Amino acid sequence: MPAHPPSKKRTAFFISDGTGLTVEGIGHSLLAQFRDQQVEQVTLPYVDSDARVNQVLQRIEHAAQESGLQPIIITSIVSDQIRKRLHESSALMLDVFESYLAPLANLFGTDPARTVGVSHGIADNPRYSARIDAVHFAMDNDDGRRTREFESADIILVGVSRSGKTPTCLYLALQFGLRAANYPITEEDMDSTALPKILRPFQHKLFGLTIDPRRLMSIRQERRANSRYASPEQCEFEVRQVEQMLRRAQIPYLDATELSVEELATRLMSQAGIERRIS
Amino acid sequence: MPAHPPSKKRTAFFISDGTGLTVEGIGHSLLAQFRDQQVEQVTLPYVDSDARVNQVLQRIEHAAQESGLQPIIITSIVSDQIRKRLHESSALMLDVFESYLAPLANLFGTDPARTVGVSHGIADNPRYSARIDAVHFAMDNDDGRRTREFESADIILVGVSRSGKTPTCLYLALQFGLRAANYPITEEDMDSTALPKILRPFQHKLFGLTIDPRRLMSIRQERRANSRYASPEQCEFEVRQVEQMLRRAQIPYLDATELSVEELATRLMSQAGIERRIS
Repeated sequence: MPAHPPSKKRTAFFISDGTGLTVEGIGHSLLAQFRDQQVEQVTLPYVDSDARVNQVLQRIEHAAQESGLQPIIITSIVSDQIRKRLHESSALMLDVFESYLAPLANLFGTDPARTVGVSHGIADNPRYSARIDAVHFAMDNDDGRRTREFESADIILVGVSRSGKTPTCLYLALQFGLRAANYPITEEDMDSTALPKILRPFQHKLFGLTIDPRRLMSIRQERRANSRYASPEQCEFEVRQVEQMLRRAQIPYLDATELSVEELATRLMSQAGIERRIS
Repeated sequence: MPAHPPSKKRTAFFISDGTGLTVEGIGHSLLAQFRDQQVEQVTLPYVDSDARVNQVLQRIEHAAQESGLQPIIITSIVSDQIRKRLHESSALMLDVFESYLAPLANLFGTDPARTVGVSHGIADNPRYSARIDAVHFAMDNDDGRRTREFESADIILVGVSRSGKTPTCLYLALQFGLRAANYPITEEDMDSTALPKILRPFQHKLFGLTIDPRRLMSIRQERRANSRYASPEQCEFEVRQVEQMLRRAQIPYLDATELSVEELATRLMSQAGIERRIS
């Protein structure tokens, strides 16, 4: 029998002179509209020199030859010289700066600076400080470890253990500079469906996360297989109790089962009416 | 004397049916090319219903009338119906899906799905698990608190206290699913410029962060004003010792003074040749 031929995948390159995070985001959302297509996705950051652009062009032509399929480039290169080099390639070019700088320059009546984006580094004192403070706040006030700083929290997430509170708090801190604490509702708090005493003074800044009990079970199984903690009965009981508690105290909540950390963070900000501290 | 007229700022709206993080990123990098322009930047996520698009259109027209300046919309709305409503506004439209879906559809020979991006929710088991594991790993292995898991780290950041290790590790975990630990080089480690014993078995996964001593001083002053810890002599001494230690042990390092957390993370990955674990 003939050997199975290697599957030939098209490649999309996300190319930037910076971190590449923005073009990667654009690429992911565009390609998500063509799920039936098999596309290898490659991010190439810091393409900011002739030597680097040479490497990149070689890699693109290699991908084209390997697969026999025209590659895709999504790019936001500032330097005209490096952009022009990229246009030499045989790929389909989606060039964000080329598409949008001209209409903006026209609107403003001024030319774009064409300088590689100034970043918000440590040297950007107030922004950096707000961000790092928020990160340390989230670390110190994770998992109910400490509650004496709840006073100065922007938001306090509550929910059962492993419902997604910790990553959401850290994301709120890193992305938006928010001081986000979290408090796990544990079995000791579940004798009644009243809010734990410690949380009552902060009711206005509480936000709940809930989760499908089956999904919770599978997350907990990975952590402590075959424990009571990860049993279907326990997961079901905890989720039901916490949802009753949240409803009774009229605390807004989100179901984390189908949402990414980014979605949880941005949705809860818009539901709770919380503004970012850094941009 | 006449009252000073209120400054009239143009507004740029970043509008999405999802989190808005991608269009916001595009907006920031485009507007960074026009630094002399005063532009108010507003992100409007989850614009996915008629009611919401009505609110948004009102807000845009309000901004136009207030300032007398044409607003800017940067958008990635999937729904044709909602996109068309946005095009009713008087703003300059930069529409990412409109610009790029057609050339991609043409390349693939298939129509885009026009469905709101499927996200990587908790339900996306392996990806979610990798991410949450990495976050907990970073929390547990922060600040030299624990070293027994260094064995399973993808990378271990070293540097003086407050050089940016913690936020960088958390970002590596959240964004790339990497298991990133960190270890602060403290005064006890500085009797010699040899690597602390505890780190020696892991030399191949160490990566250093350094920082300008004056910037370090100002960060430390905010934390413990007028302490020896925040004195110019101490900051200078620690930075010099750590840089010597890193050079002597041939550990690669980055200067965090002018770099954002995103840049530190992506640059160190590319220097250390570390691949992301999630995409």
